[in-house]
Amino acid sequence: MKKQDNILIIGAGLCGSLLALRLAQRGYKVEVYESRPDLRTTDISAGRSINLALSDRGFKALRLAGVEEKAREICIPMYGRLIHDIEGNTFASNYSGRENEYINSISRGDLNGILLTEAEKHENVTIHFNSKCTSVDIENTIANFKSYETKEEFSVNVDVIFGTDGAGSILRKSYYLEKKFLFSYSQNYLTHGYKELEIPADINGKHQISKDHLHIWPRGDYMLIALPNLDGSFTVTLFLGHEEGAYHFEGLDSEEKIKDFFQAQFPDALKLIPNIAEEFANNPTGALGTVKCSPWYYKGNTLLMGDAAHAVVPFYGQGMNASFEDVTVLDEILNQNLGSWDATFKGYQKVRKKDADAIGDLAVENYYEMRDHVANPLFKEKRKLEMELEKNFPNEYFSKYSMVTFNENIGYHEAMTKGRAQDKALLNMVADNDLRDVSDLKEVLKRVQKETNEILEEDKIAGL
Amino acid sequence: MKKQDNILIIGAGLCGSLLALRLAQRGYKVEVYESRPDLRTTDISAGRSINLALSDRGFKALRLAGVEEKAREICIPMYGRLIHDIEGNTFASNYSGRENEYINSISRGDLNGILLTEAEKHENVTIHFNSKCTSVDIENTIANFKSYETKEEFSVNVDVIFGTDGAGSILRKSYYLEKKFLFSYSQNYLTHGYKELEIPADINGKHQISKDHLHIWPRGDYMLIALPNLDGSFTVTLFLGHEEGAYHFEGLDSEEKIKDFFQAQFPDALKLIPNIAEEFANNPTGALGTVKCSPWYYKGNTLLMGDAAHAVVPFYGQGMNASFEDVTVLDEILNQNLGSWDATFKGYQKVRKKDADAIGDLAVENYYEMRDHVANPLFKEKRKLEMELEKNFPNEYFSKYSMVTFNENIGYHEAMTKGRAQDKALLNMVADNDLRDVSDLKEVLKRVQKETNEILEEDKIAGL
Repeated sequence: MKKQDNILIIGAGLCGSLLALRLAQRGYKVEVYESRPDLRTTDISAGRSINLALSDRGFKALRLAGVEEKAREICIPMYGRLIHDIEGNTFASNYSGRENEYINSISRGDLNGILLTEAEKHENVTIHFNSKCTSVDIENTIANFKSYETKEEFSVNVDVIFGTDGAGSILRKSYYLEKKFLFSYSQNYLTHGYKELEIPADINGKHQISKDHLHIWPRGDYMLIALPNLDGSFTVTLFLGHEEGAYHFEGLDSEEKIKDFFQAQFPDALKLIPNIAEEFANNPTGALGTVKCSPWYYKGNTLLMGDAAHAVVPFYGQGMNASFEDVTVLDEILNQNLGSWDATFKGYQKVRKKDADAIGDLAVENYYEMRDHVANPLFKEKRKLEMELEKNFPNEYFSKYSMVTFNENIGYHEAMTKGRAQDKALLNMVADNDLRDVSDLKEVLKRVQKETNEILEEDKIAGL
Repeated sequence: MKKQDNILIIGAGLCGSLLALRLAQRGYKVEVYESRPDLRTTDISAGRSINLALSDRGFKALRLAGVEEKAREICIPMYGRLIHDIEGNTFASNYSGRENEYINSISRGDLNGILLTEAEKHENVTIHFNSKCTSVDIENTIANFKSYETKEEFSVNVDVIFGTDGAGSILRKSYYLEKKFLFSYSQNYLTHGYKELEIPADINGKHQISKDHLHIWPRGDYMLIALPNLDGSFTVTLFLGHEEGAYHFEGLDSEEKIKDFFQAQFPDALKLIPNIAEEFANNPTGALGTVKCSPWYYKGNTLLMGDAAHAVVPFYGQGMNASFEDVTVLDEILNQNLGSWDATFKGYQKVRKKDADAIGDLAVENYYEMRDHVANPLFKEKRKLEMELEKNFPNEYFSKYSMVTFNENIGYHEAMTKGRAQDKALLNMVADNDLRDVSDLKEVLKRVQKETNEILEEDKIAGL
């Protein structure tokens, strides 16, 4: 484990480019190979989310690499959800009772561009575009590529390979196919898919609906969301069953059916999406999958990071943040000077795995919450109470959402465990009307804390 | 969906041979292809469990196919666990407080042989041995094989293909590789593996330890178990970490180390295993994995059943029973006359999937219970109380184990959900000493039922 070690990173997406930057800052020699062309000079956004939610875990990693401020410059703060009901009424629901806590809409491409430019400022970083990884020989740390420019195949033999090549990772596939070790692996798809549409800016280049919110049109079995872009437009995403339910992607096969569906379910949104039929036909329908696997490493030779190790569905707005946090955690393990890449990778997975698993589970869970629960009276009352608690006891009460999104020093797993117990306590107290006669909010806080601790204790005794 | 449909079954193991028998009884034309030679005339036990636990779900399916009595003739009843501590003391722990509830040790090969012979009695069944399935064209329902006898490759084009080809299913692999649909898939390995050893019969051909029990030597991080065979021997299985823990398979690489390990941890068992060093070296170390996937079917063309659809770890003694129950459930769906194989397969998965998932989870959970909890005072006290409840209220109280093992008319999922809540209620009541002053057992039953229902209700309100 020496600074002279040749490090190869597969994939110059968000995780790969931040990793390259950070490893370069630590003095390593880094070669990055990316299958796509340079996104700073080519438009290659098709089929990928155009904007993403950036929050505190992401900022912590960007801060570590000295690029937090550059990222903040292109952020649009979203302070809460704006729920659109079927009649066109809207209801705001803040993400936190604390004023300084909000999430940010940011362009994937712009942020990726910043990270690439920062990484390339380092002499010890080289980025090769249009180089598609086709397989990895994990025993001999050789990565095989095909150049999309010259069409030639070539191999690179290095000391260590990082796979930050996304949900469809080739390094991960090599683990699966090479069968050199027992590889636990799962890919789980939701029955729903997604399609991106656009609400353009108005004639003055301004946003047509509030840019301070993440917009949601929850309809039970399907849902529309919209995040603002800097140019005044919104990226809209429809989440809908592939082939199940009253409406589904397979069934929406004509302009008439698409417009009828939107007219019936999202009439206010339909008015804002002028090219809906064309976009619906041309934009791909994406799958929503969760990937988990273990081990992430093979000896001290290779390591999976980011979506390649733990792809998550987008419903907690944490995919990018979790990938960036991987870099933070790896950096902490590198600080421990464990002496070998093998020990470093083992140490990294030992700390990181339970948190990566947790955000995968939280994201699926939030899918149901966003679709169903935001319209459920019990959940609404609970949410209202939590806002009051956060507002009045900013240093004592943190909702599950706040722990996951704004508390970058609590791991996802701890946030999930504590957050779930807290949710269960609150929902049952609300359902049982336990808090009806409690006028003192401090007393409410105490009871919620007591009930939450009891739930955690009872689970522990049951070995859960 | 006609009786003239040509049905092909891949794999003539326990599930495939019972399925062939039952489909033949229903009048279908069935061709079965099995990679191994005929186990009735060849010894091919190496590397597979020699005996298995058969219980009520298995019997229900065998009864449906008219072979229950034949199976009972080769069963050895095991009424409970016999726990061996490190000093060689033993403690019996019945599986149920009801006298007629016990599990059975049965030879995999003998039972499989009975099913093959019964299936072959039907004119409309043909079984081809030594025919290894290499791939399946799921769109055109063509299965490709290689003959181990002639070395020739051949293809069979049929109307419907059932994949009962076990945990390493080729049909399932074809789903994964063909990418014709979103295939959710997981393979999850425990950090532990297993190795089979033998306690031979004594010189009179008798069992050297009680044949009425499943023997367990629980030691926290590792465990030995033994099930009786009809010939007076026991099949012993060691469960141990592959490469982690104070002792592990990789580390036990010499006769001295193996004997030292057994002498220190299982001294009474060591005395009964004369060929331990030889067997340890020659018998393979097996992996312990859980497989889940969805969908199990492709159109009305193909269906996965048994381990191919849901391989489970052996710790609930339900692997074979779950596979046999698949046949019971499919038979019930066929009785509904849904009109097409497509509708039949959909209907089958809709009923069966949640139960198959549940037994996979229960089996992993029981791994920890068998290793750790049998020696935990809280769990011991709970188990004692449950025996009393089952004995005194045989029609009212059923432990999780009883629901899973002896109540073939409750699905695994319901057994898991209710059983977990009941366990949690009992463990917390025991831990809190809630039942200290309750002398009336009827009152204990009422309190346990009340607490269990409250736990289920609280989970429901929390959306769990």
